[in-house]
Amino acid sequence: MQRRMSSLLAHSLRSGRIKAVLCDIHGVLFDNDEGKTYPVPGSVAAFNCLVSRGVPVRLVSNESACPPEAVLKHCIQAGLQVTLDQIFVTTPAAYKIISDRKLRPFVLVNKEVEQFFSSLDQTNPNCVLLGDAIENFHYESLNKAFRILMSNPDAQLISLGVGKYYRKGGSGELSLDVGPFTKALEFATGKQAQIIGKPSKAYFEAALNDVGVKASEALMIGDDIVNDVGGGQSAGMQATLVRTGKYTPSDEHHAQVKPDLIVDNFASFVHFITQHLN
Amino acid sequence: MQRRMSSLLAHSLRSGRIKAVLCDIHGVLFDNDEGKTYPVPGSVAAFNCLVSRGVPVRLVSNESACPPEAVLKHCIQAGLQVTLDQIFVTTPAAYKIISDRKLRPFVLVNKEVEQFFSSLDQTNPNCVLLGDAIENFHYESLNKAFRILMSNPDAQLISLGVGKYYRKGGSGELSLDVGPFTKALEFATGKQAQIIGKPSKAYFEAALNDVGVKASEALMIGDDIVNDVGGGQSAGMQATLVRTGKYTPSDEHHAQVKPDLIVDNFASFVHFITQHLN
Repeated sequence: MQRRMSSLLAHSLRSGRIKAVLCDIHGVLFDNDEGKTYPVPGSVAAFNCLVSRGVPVRLVSNESACPPEAVLKHCIQAGLQVTLDQIFVTTPAAYKIISDRKLRPFVLVNKEVEQFFSSLDQTNPNCVLLGDAIENFHYESLNKAFRILMSNPDAQLISLGVGKYYRKGGSGELSLDVGPFTKALEFATGKQAQIIGKPSKAYFEAALNDVGVKASEALMIGDDIVNDVGGGQSAGMQATLVRTGKYTPSDEHHAQVKPDLIVDNFASFVHFITQHLN
Repeated sequence: MQRRMSSLLAHSLRSGRIKAVLCDIHGVLFDNDEGKTYPVPGSVAAFNCLVSRGVPVRLVSNESACPPEAVLKHCIQAGLQVTLDQIFVTTPAAYKIISDRKLRPFVLVNKEVEQFFSSLDQTNPNCVLLGDAIENFHYESLNKAFRILMSNPDAQLISLGVGKYYRKGGSGELSLDVGPFTKALEFATGKQAQIIGKPSKAYFEAALNDVGVKASEALMIGDDIVNDVGGGQSAGMQATLVRTGKYTPSDEHHAQVKPDLIVDNFASFVHFITQHLN
């Protein structure tokens, strides 16, 4: 089955139908061990090889604890030949939506990211923007968000993803992501959050628009069977699962999501696609 | 329909089948106005009349921000002739469950209630007890709860109710209750919380056991159409809705729950039942 799928993907590559790659960052290019983040072996050289072959790439991540400039810096320090316009994280996407709709957000994100939204009018808020706020999540801030949502039937909850948890560099302990806090406010208010980030189709489409290709012309690669692979496929892309990051063997037998390709790591993926690019 | 129902209830009273009353506290005996808590007019005299008629009463509340002694003090100050053994709140019920199961809880409740659980062994926790923790809800405490639940497949989440929010005395602003935080931890861990409190059938049954009557021999009265009336009926009681507290007129046309009796306030309820007691 997997062989048939990968030969279909190979055919798409040979026929020139695949024009761009959307690539998750954490778990694909980088991994964690005992709280320390490091590039997945071979991923930096493979990424630079892909770029040198002229394949347009976007790094599509739900990272909301870090502004795009900080993500870029981290990537460049690791040796990736990447520019800011290739970094597609949730913060600029949220900024654009809030700005286009002329909303005045209460921005509940962490200290490093607050600055990114500082030019938006935040007086008398009529929406709540929720990110991975880390230590900014407390009873007072959550009540403030809750009261804004309850005080105005039109007040929207916008959330930078619905990740459940992650293993943080530093302590290496599991930590709550933005998703549980989104669910808490949804339950309390009866409102449904608008999710900015994978697996939202709109988010993938924005990244595709940014590269200027159709979904059928792009490959998604990620370590999250549901959000990266399932989400990418729902948006119309072919999608690859890597056996790094949060991958577990049971992902290969997922009840709903069947990857178009499964590879050991990002280097194997690049090897596969460069072999078949015409 | 309502007339037929109330005549059925009157018949139960006349025939001597009704032997006890379970009564919610906030919204029935007390109400709030601009953040100030006051006894519902007539409720104190009515309560004392019921007690003087020899009707066993339990005050059944989901109050988890306050130990039973504090609830008692509040009731006595208002003039209610009530004793500690009539106060059936969630904290002693949770204490009993944790103690009977020999669990070692991480107790995430507010400062006033922490003391109530201080005699339980809390070293190396293997369960999480969640209450209305108020300012004790923050990223660090929620992560601690989350990590305990994730570190041990058998670690249980026990929650003192699933209330969404309440209007607090003092500021009078809406504030998040324990429910949203319960939902956050359920979403993050994939575990389902055991709820101690209304509308749990086990909780009503514990209160009934405490009075020593069967469900068919007790009346429940409350202002929450789902948790008090629906929950009480599911546990086998006849249940009355009061038009005070969180009551709204739409409750009288609830899709699922039909009260056995609807009264303007607690005094009307007592008037109705004393009229029909034989």
